Order: sequence, then C-alpha cells, then structure tokens
Amino acid sequence: MVTQQAPEPARRGRGRRPAAEVRREVLRAAGELLLTEGMAAFTIEKVAALSGASRVTLYKWWPSKGALALDGYFDAVGPTLAFPDTGDIAADLTAQLRAFVHLMRDTRAGRVMPELIGHAQTDPELSALLRERYSAPRRALAVEALERAKERGRLREDVDPEVVVDQLWGACYHRLLIPDQPLTDEFAEALVRNLLAGIGRP
Amino acid sequence: MVTQQAPEPARRGRGRRPAAEVRREVLRAAGELLLTEGMAAFTIEKVAALSGASRVTLYKWWPSKGALALDGYFDAVGPTLAFPDTGDIAADLTAQLRAFVHLMRDTRAGRVMPELIGHAQTDPELSALLRERYSAPRRALAVEALERAKERGRLREDVDPEVVVDQLWGACYHRLLIPDQPLTDEFAEALVRNLLAGIGRP
Repeated sequence: MVTQQAPEPARRGRGRRPAAEVRREVLRAAGELLLTEGMAAFTIEKVAALSGASRVTLYKWWPSKGALALDGYFDAVGPTLAFPDTGDIAADLTAQLRAFVHLMRDTRAGRVMPELIGHAQTDPELSALLRERYSAPRRALAVEALERAKERGRLREDVDPEVVVDQLWGACYHRLLIPDQPLTDEFAEALVRNLLAGIGRP
Repeated sequence: MVTQQAPEPARRGRGRRPAAEVRREVLRAAGELLLTEGMAAFTIEKVAALSGASRVTLYKWWPSKGALALDGYFDAVGPTLAFPDTGDIAADLTAQLRAFVHLMRDTRAGRVMPELIGHAQTDPELSALLRERYSAPRRALAVEALERAKERGRLREDVDPEVVVDQLWGACYHRLLIPDQPLTDEFAEALVRNLLAGIGRP
C-alpha cells in the first residue's frame, strides 16, 4: 500500500496532469537533483517529492534509480549539447565541443559524469544503463551530424563517423577521467583542426 | 616488530641481494599479482611473500599499496607498449596502438586498468598516484615519439603533441571505459589514418 507522506507542492491544486507533463516534470526534477546533489544523494523518493509524481508512477516508468538518474541527466544536458547545423562542419563541431568542455569544466555535470563512469567500471548494471540511456544516444546524435557532413561532401567518403566520435568527444572524456592535461577551449578547437586538416606532412 | 610468517621461497639460499635486484623482483611480483588477481586481492604482504623481500623494505620504498600496484603495472606493460622508431611515424604509431589495443582486449590489463581508473574517480589519492606513476609517464613517452616525428618534418610544426595523445590513446580509453564500440585492429589503424591525413574535404 502506498501512503501519502509529505505534502507534494508541485501537485497541489492541479488535479490530474497528463502523463507527458508528469514525465517532463519528473525528468526535470531528476536532472536537477542529480546535478545539485550528486549520485550518492539521489533517490527515487526525493524525485517523487520534488516533481509531485507518486512513487508508484516512478517505479512503473523506471526500472531503477540509475535509469531515472541517467534519463534526468540526458534531459538536463540535452539542450546545452545540441548540434548546431550551419553547414560549416568545422564551426559546428567546434561550437558543440566547446559547449561540452564548458559543461564538464564549469558545472556539476563535470563531477557527476566521471562519478557515473567510474562506478560503471565495477557495476555491470550501471554500465549497461549508462550506455543504453546516455552514451549510445549521444553517440548517435554525433554520428548523425557527421553523416550529414559526409552527404554534403565536407568529409572524406571512407571515414567512419564512429571513429571520429572517439577522436573528438572521446579525447575530451580522456582529459576528464585522467586529468593530466586541462579541458580548455583551445583544446576543443585543436581537436577539430587536427582531425579535419590532418597533422601529417607528406 | 616484523615477524617472519610464511616461508619465502624466492629468498631461500640466496643471502643478501643488491637493492636494484630486489626492486626488480618486487616490481615483477607486483605486476604479476595485479594482472592475475586484480586490485581487490592486491596486498603488500602478498607481494613481499612472492618476491622474497621483507615487508619493511616494501613499506620503506612505496608509500601505499596503490603506489606499488601502479609501479608494478607500469613495469609489466612497459615492454609491450614500447614505441618502435623506424622513422615511419604512421607505421610506428599504428604498431604501438595495435599493441595497446591487444593488451586491453586480450589480457587482464584490460580489466585492471578500467578498475583503477574507475576507483580513481572517487578516490583523490589513487587519482594522483595513477597520474604520477602511470598516465603522466606514458603520456611523456608518446609526446617524445611525436616530437621526434616533428623534428624529422613528418608532422606539422603547429601541432600540439599533447592533443594528439588524446586523439589516439585517449580515443582507445574512451572505447575501453564506455564500450559502445569495440576495440579492434581496424580501429587502431583508422585512428592514425584519420589524424595524419585528415578527414575533411576542401
């Protein structure tokens, strides 16, 4: 039996809300909670209280608190990490990578993401969730942008976009997880310059 | 007081060994123990027993078991990850990256390293040790090889070798830690091809 516990401010005076609206508010609350308090303090109960949704609903929609946290994270960072599409692939990639570097360097996301990836190394369930709900969809968005550039003839025909993802965003994750060198705007710019123009001399 | 516990086979009948020899055997034992049993089972006591060195010596030379484990790891993988220098930078980088991919994909190193990097995300002391005793020295070796190629006129003058490290080995760590895509020989080859020749079309 589910008992009503604390008052749920977001629900007060609203009556029944459409499921899509509840879902949006749950995701927003989950992202906010994760980014302000970190994974250690993240619980389904707190998200329920913050969003005004019932815990039963949350447990019905998300199989675990890890799944809810990752969906909340994706929802929170998605707009910041959108791919611009001006047709200039160098400028678009640089802008997106600068936004990513900024997010990791200057916000709580830069502490939460390494924590999640770190725990995933010894927690197979979290690892699967992280890939399914965060890294694979983010990778797909990047591949899509690179495929568009290929279709427009801006990238070589024989280039595998999946490898490019590792040489741009993967390079950033490397500095995030093993911080021998800093994450800077100049780094984001050099990544794109190196890869588009090539670093070799004939 | 240090009491003699189990028999220590490696020391039997040898008398006093030179410090350099003891150090070599300790590192070999540490690397072997880490790669066969993982970090969870790694203790200074076991390394002492395996190497025939006294625990007092080990505690004198290494500030913690993490430091000893990382020095043992570096010692164990060093020869496999040596940088060939044939003068052909594309071939040399590809050979080194293939050796790295092989080590991570086909040996216990590919389980130990993610475990160490994972724990380092929430353990500042391990993080500092990992950088000081493993990633920074490995990075320095790669930068050295890239600087040689620059001096020989094989890489563009304005290229920062530190960024290249993230776009080659960092890209591999990305697939190791977030395994959305596999670590393969073809991947190692594509990393070098993309970066040397560039992926853009004018």
